[in-house]
Amino acid sequence: MKQLARRNIASVASYVPGKPIEETKRQLRLKEIIKLASNENPLGVSPKAKEAMKKAISGVNRYPDSLGFYLKEKLAEFLRVNTGNVVLGNGSDELIDIVIKTFVEEDENIITSDVTFLEYEIIAKVNNRKITRVPLKYFKYDLEAIKRKIDKKTKLIFIANPNNPTGTYVTKYEFEDFLRNIPSGVIVVLDEAYEAFIDVDDFPSGINYFRKHNVIALKTFSKAYGLAGLRIGYALANQEFCASMEKVRQPFNTNSLAQAGALAALDDKDFLRRTKENNADGKIYFYRQLSGLGLSYPSSVANFILVDVGKDGVTVFKEMLNYGVIVRDMKQYGLKNFIRVTVGTKKENERFIKILKKVLSKSEVIK
Amino acid sequence: MKQLARRNIASVASYVPGKPIEETKRQLRLKEIIKLASNENPLGVSPKAKEAMKKAISGVNRYPDSLGFYLKEKLAEFLRVNTGNVVLGNGSDELIDIVIKTFVEEDENIITSDVTFLEYEIIAKVNNRKITRVPLKYFKYDLEAIKRKIDKKTKLIFIANPNNPTGTYVTKYEFEDFLRNIPSGVIVVLDEAYEAFIDVDDFPSGINYFRKHNVIALKTFSKAYGLAGLRIGYALANQEFCASMEKVRQPFNTNSLAQAGALAALDDKDFLRRTKENNADGKIYFYRQLSGLGLSYPSSVANFILVDVGKDGVTVFKEMLNYGVIVRDMKQYGLKNFIRVTVGTKKENERFIKILKKVLSKSEVIK
Repeated sequence: MKQLARRNIASVASYVPGKPIEETKRQLRLKEIIKLASNENPLGVSPKAKEAMKKAISGVNRYPDSLGFYLKEKLAEFLRVNTGNVVLGNGSDELIDIVIKTFVEEDENIITSDVTFLEYEIIAKVNNRKITRVPLKYFKYDLEAIKRKIDKKTKLIFIANPNNPTGTYVTKYEFEDFLRNIPSGVIVVLDEAYEAFIDVDDFPSGINYFRKHNVIALKTFSKAYGLAGLRIGYALANQEFCASMEKVRQPFNTNSLAQAGALAALDDKDFLRRTKENNADGKIYFYRQLSGLGLSYPSSVANFILVDVGKDGVTVFKEMLNYGVIVRDMKQYGLKNFIRVTVGTKKENERFIKILKKVLSKSEVIK
Repeated sequence: MKQLARRNIASVASYVPGKPIEETKRQLRLKEIIKLASNENPLGVSPKAKEAMKKAISGVNRYPDSLGFYLKEKLAEFLRVNTGNVVLGNGSDELIDIVIKTFVEEDENIITSDVTFLEYEIIAKVNNRKITRVPLKYFKYDLEAIKRKIDKKTKLIFIANPNNPTGTYVTKYEFEDFLRNIPSGVIVVLDEAYEAFIDVDDFPSGINYFRKHNVIALKTFSKAYGLAGLRIGYALANQEFCASMEKVRQPFNTNSLAQAGALAALDDKDFLRRTKENNADGKIYFYRQLSGLGLSYPSSVANFILVDVGKDGVTVFKEMLNYGVIVRDMKQYGLKNFIRVTVGTKKENERFIKILKKVLSKSEVIK
């Protein structure tokens, strides 16, 4: 059979997700496993969201509300924006695709950073769009270098803020300076998946910029709201941008239970508060322990930490897996001696440190 | 602000879905509404699927299994194919996008029929691909005319079989003759969303062709399995096609509850049997009543009937809506004097006929 797939598809390297718990149990025949690999919420699912989803189950023979009417109304009220500033997506992953399809012509290009969320590049390539990656500077997005890469055909710039997997962020000052100095036809996408965990004052939240600038903010319910498995996120942008994105969005892209769960999760302030507290406590514990082990890491404003383990990260990942602790190796990101660990519960964090010590103390790490 | 959306997006006409029950209640302040507009399952959700989803809710803080391991294993066993022949999608809508992105180069084109599922054209246009529509012949796909439209740049042909909104089907003989006579580089996509309702012997199910031909079959859990709100479907194709499509598919495109629900629904033979019986009985009732009213309709092998109401379908739709009966007008499909009605429960079907009589008997239909 003749090769019928498009030429650009051949060059797409698929995303390799964090290993799911079930799959790892299946493969390694382990009974107890903790997963600190995908920046998920260790406290589980918002109780209010669970309740709402249970009630909605008996109605899933009906198509979802294609308008996402109630969720958009709620978000508009919650964020003090108009419903016309919100576009719902099947997770922010899908919104990345929607943004590219809506705005980037065949001959236009995209810029992002090295060592950032991999889906920007994968989705750009799937859509056969040129994407350039600019190296990090001290583990941070280098906005100056990105600015210099802009050419006449640059249409989109993806900035993960905070950045995954480094946990670093672009400051308000840096971002505003950047915005002032880029051409007017360039759109900046701020991917703010981890915004709920921010504990600094100089974070430039996209909601403050989309009205006067070509800024689109991407948000998700996957992290702080504990709804990763349901796939629900949204974009915030000016109404004109949103109207175009709505034409690209498929009518039933977000499922009914995700809409119901997200709506209820927004009201679950107690769950969000506990999530943030657990995360702040966990990071302090990790920082102290990692420093005690002589390991370095960039300071993180998110719910994960990138750790320089001083030896091959894939080996450390595999070794830890044998003890039932799933972290993320950074091979896909080109960071050889690093792993990324998500803040878990107190018990999970302690187990992670215990096993990390064990693995790193071995004189020879077994391949 | 300068227009920044792509030029092709301006020409995209968004899909207008059937009105959701909640939205209609909201707008018309009606208490009791029946929806026979979106070919949903009137018996609700498979009880086994409901049970499985309830159990899975507490795990939705984790990302879905990106491989869809258990659901694909189950499907492979159920259909007697390999897991490598299956690609999961966020409903068949998403699979249409995946197929176009995987196979159709910028300068290649797509062919489908007039008066068919509208998403083929919408998604093709969103992806800036040329799509040609060939007129129906006696309410059926005209494969001879489609064959004549094929040129050197034709890559994909979408055939909805059974066709929505006509309920007609392409026969085994017609399809095999077509397959024999098209160029080897053309891929035929059979959209078989309504296959479970088929009650004829000469239906050419895609599963019998994908091994030896460039055929991709699209399937959904939205209709007979009652999971429209969850968004889950799959493509069946040869392993090479599937491997390319897997590169285009986003890793977390299908949600955890959809995977759990679909897995359980496949085992719910009782629910499927009742669904088919209800549909067969409902169609007999509709045929008899519609003929009694002197109305004509193409015979349907699906779970809906296209009815020639002899006057403006939008007006009839609006009139029926005022009585709390939601059907689908066919304006988007260019069929002026038609409505499409989904087979409902016995009670719903009787109410539909009662209200239809009332609306049609008015000497002057009110706009």
